[in-house]
Amino acid sequence: MSKNPKKKLGERIRTFRKQVGWSQEELAEACGLHRTYVGAVERGERNISLVNIVQIARSLKVKPSDLMENIS
Amino acid sequence: MSKNPKKKLGERIRTFRKQVGWSQEELAEACGLHRTYVGAVERGERNISLVNIVQIARSLKVKPSDLMENIS
Repeated sequence: MSKNPKKKLGERIRTFRKQVGWSQEELAEACGLHRTYVGAVERGERNISLVNIVQIARSLKVKPSDLMENIS
Repeated sequence: MSKNPKKKLGERIRTFRKQVGWSQEELAEACGLHRTYVGAVERGERNISLVNIVQIARSLKVKPSDLMENIS
């Protein structure tokens, strides 16, 4: 694989978060996750679960599949 | 939510698996997961991780985002 799926998802989340104008802490609050966890997800350090992917997507008002679009 | 994301993903995996003509056991072998785990994922009983979603998608020769398409 060209790039780690965890890193790709993390970058995608970061991109959408910045479009919304939120800090990691604001995203964390919006989706009910811890800010250190959100930071680790954005850096591709966590193997995030489906339920948390969906939670983050909803907070960012995107579809979960949009967060996965660059992963192959 | 209208329907559990875990159930939706499971149904989607099952649909693609049947298109390929595989049993759960054949899919499990192809993606290096246990057949009882694959069965539980298809029934929506497991909160599957990103890495395993990607693994299953690759085995089914679809994009991970295709597996997530019906989840909102």
